[in-house]
Amino acid sequence: MSEASTGICLLGCGIVGGGVVKILTDQAELLRQRIGVRFDIRHVVVRDPKKHAATYPGLPLTTDAHAAIDDPKVQIVVELMGGTTAAGALVERALKLGKPVVTANKSLLASRGPELFALARKHNTAIAFEASCGGGIPIIDALSRGLVANRIDALVGIVNGTCNVILTRMTRNGWSYAQALQEAQKLGFAEADPTLDVSGRDAAQKLAILAGLAFNARVSEADIHVEGIDKLHPADIQFATDLGYVIKLLAIGERDAEGRLTLRVHPTLVHKTDVLAEVSGSFNAISIYGHALGHALFYGRGAGQMPTASAAVADLVGVATGTTQLAFKRLNIYPDSAAPAKVLPFEQLQSRYYLRLTARDVPGVLAQITHALGEHGISLSAVLQREADESQYVPVVITTHLARQGAMRAALQAIDALPTIQGPSVCLRVIDQPKEFANG
Amino acid sequence: MSEASTGICLLGCGIVGGGVVKILTDQAELLRQRIGVRFDIRHVVVRDPKKHAATYPGLPLTTDAHAAIDDPKVQIVVELMGGTTAAGALVERALKLGKPVVTANKSLLASRGPELFALARKHNTAIAFEASCGGGIPIIDALSRGLVANRIDALVGIVNGTCNVILTRMTRNGWSYAQALQEAQKLGFAEADPTLDVSGRDAAQKLAILAGLAFNARVSEADIHVEGIDKLHPADIQFATDLGYVIKLLAIGERDAEGRLTLRVHPTLVHKTDVLAEVSGSFNAISIYGHALGHALFYGRGAGQMPTASAAVADLVGVATGTTQLAFKRLNIYPDSAAPAKVLPFEQLQSRYYLRLTARDVPGVLAQITHALGEHGISLSAVLQREADESQYVPVVITTHLARQGAMRAALQAIDALPTIQGPSVCLRVIDQPKEFANG
Repeated sequence: MSEASTGICLLGCGIVGGGVVKILTDQAELLRQRIGVRFDIRHVVVRDPKKHAATYPGLPLTTDAHAAIDDPKVQIVVELMGGTTAAGALVERALKLGKPVVTANKSLLASRGPELFALARKHNTAIAFEASCGGGIPIIDALSRGLVANRIDALVGIVNGTCNVILTRMTRNGWSYAQALQEAQKLGFAEADPTLDVSGRDAAQKLAILAGLAFNARVSEADIHVEGIDKLHPADIQFATDLGYVIKLLAIGERDAEGRLTLRVHPTLVHKTDVLAEVSGSFNAISIYGHALGHALFYGRGAGQMPTASAAVADLVGVATGTTQLAFKRLNIYPDSAAPAKVLPFEQLQSRYYLRLTARDVPGVLAQITHALGEHGISLSAVLQREADESQYVPVVITTHLARQGAMRAALQAIDALPTIQGPSVCLRVIDQPKEFANG
Repeated sequence: MSEASTGICLLGCGIVGGGVVKILTDQAELLRQRIGVRFDIRHVVVRDPKKHAATYPGLPLTTDAHAAIDDPKVQIVVELMGGTTAAGALVERALKLGKPVVTANKSLLASRGPELFALARKHNTAIAFEASCGGGIPIIDALSRGLVANRIDALVGIVNGTCNVILTRMTRNGWSYAQALQEAQKLGFAEADPTLDVSGRDAAQKLAILAGLAFNARVSEADIHVEGIDKLHPADIQFATDLGYVIKLLAIGERDAEGRLTLRVHPTLVHKTDVLAEVSGSFNAISIYGHALGHALFYGRGAGQMPTASAAVADLVGVATGTTQLAFKRLNIYPDSAAPAKVLPFEQLQSRYYLRLTARDVPGVLAQITHALGEHGISLSAVLQREADESQYVPVVITTHLARQGAMRAALQAIDALPTIQGPSVCLRVIDQPKEFANG
């Protein structure tokens, strides 16, 4: 690939594809200077060329993906279609021809990553996937190179911009979930069908990819416990604020001393002094805890046309210069060469919890609750119970010390069975990041 | 370098060298798994082997740097001595033998980087220098790879942990500079002679390296305007707090539309909502503004044994797998292939300013001050003047809108010449980061 011109084909030309075209066009001179290569867009495969012709005059639009991939002048295939079926088949086709693939497709990698990486290896080529996680944040690169000397003990990230936009609005404006979602949709931060994002599944797909690299394990979506933000009540955001916390949808991967992983995506109370609490709107941030590095954080635009295109073009540069292929060949950190993750059963997860119970306003209720928790070995960290107004029921908010998920589930069953409690109670998790500021 | 064993020699075995030895020893199995290479420490060059023998039993300590570098079994030279003269000569020796060099030596790279990079290129080898800036934060890698598709418009960083420890103490505890320095020295965050750090020079050396990569220009220390923190008065930290700002020692590189750079290191007022304001103690953080990426921030331990060793060993991995050499060969982003920076004269810098004047408590003083500023086209953004107590002089604190450095200098001369002012007045700069949160 030392030619002055490198032929590429784009599969898909939606938001991110348009951004890639824009960078390759507007920054052609910068890229030529930096890498001595001119990227030549040979084909842009779209479903309906007429739709794109006006936006991209002069682009070689086509519907024939096979011919585009097979074109001997195409040296790199950039897959930005999304979805798994058609995209998967085309990525396979490119790899079988020995052509490296740049992709932003987290669904595809989360579901078929190991298989596709193995296929790439078999055909002596590579897959570059910086754009699949964290938008423009070079987090894949950091895990693959910059942090390679570290045993990673944990990664904790805000990796879904849509959810973070919604939570930011709910927190700052006191809005309901529905109201914040509607606003996010109006501003283009959420899709018409927001399910993939708000269910936490998009974050889980990214966690599967990131955790695979961080822990050198084969992680599948099924290994990840997932809860979304769509059931979140404004009252809990308000109570969290009162307690000094901010609620964020976090993707969390942790490794214990025996190498077992806990992998989860759920709304989480983050202390307001935690740097993740400051990550607002569509920004993403990923905290990594390495044995040598300690805490590092990578922050930036987690989605959007140009940030994601920034990552895809960085991958194009890595592939065009051959460094991506060399790293892919020499480093045994990709999931195709890893053993399946040893996942700690979710019931054994140790966490702190936030509970919101709806209790009848009669004497002795708090004693009943603390007794039920105590029976399961769970002790309280804080309690917030306001004096009742006219209503018969009052909210009782509790945070706990560390307890196993299984014990908490059993305690909640017992609590919800109390005649004084109107279930189901709300249970969220609290994360305490290592406090490293203490000594400066 | 596809051998199962890669011979290395360490030049220097102080704090960081000890960390490298520790990672290579303790994580030998992790590294072997990840890269299929066993690093073999063939020689550790130190001035006084007896001093180290007890700490590192079994390490091949030697005083003979030449023999160590020349040993045909040594394939990579790791320079962790610091200083420029002896270290420079040994790095040259290694490069002339075609041996890649891993270095944490910012002084050496800031003063002789282009020359040494050219030498490496001539001998078909490479220099890896992730550990030279930002401790364990993979910022060199981000600028070289992850952000390579971006025209970088600005980089703003907290890159000196010692100064940040001192400023954090001054801010949180209301301490004087001398008191905070003493505490930092006691805790090992500042050297016995702290000049290199507190003068801002260490930060300037890092800025020279980072700006060279970010702007693809040959930057020398002389291009950088440098002010340290050693003259900083607690009163200014307090007034900054009152105005909603935090004072940080920032290294700032900016590029204007004509490609001219402003490069500076000085105490700076950062708005308390800016993420950099949250970076406390020995942590470092570097904000990058890319044309496609927008704002990204890289945060982590900027110094210390293990974080810096984490970066040096990552470089060892990059060199052992050959990706570093390939990137060095293929990317034209290193300062040896760049033109000298076009630096905007410092007098033309546009900035906002913070002024603290000591004014006689008589009517009309504020009018005289605003007149002097107005004469030079400088308008006020905020004024803080408390009612006088017993003293004859009162502090008048002013923040301004954007103005040229030259105009501000001239205005200050005029102000300090006023009979009602007790000069010299304090003048700091205020930075307003692009506000990107507005739309979510």
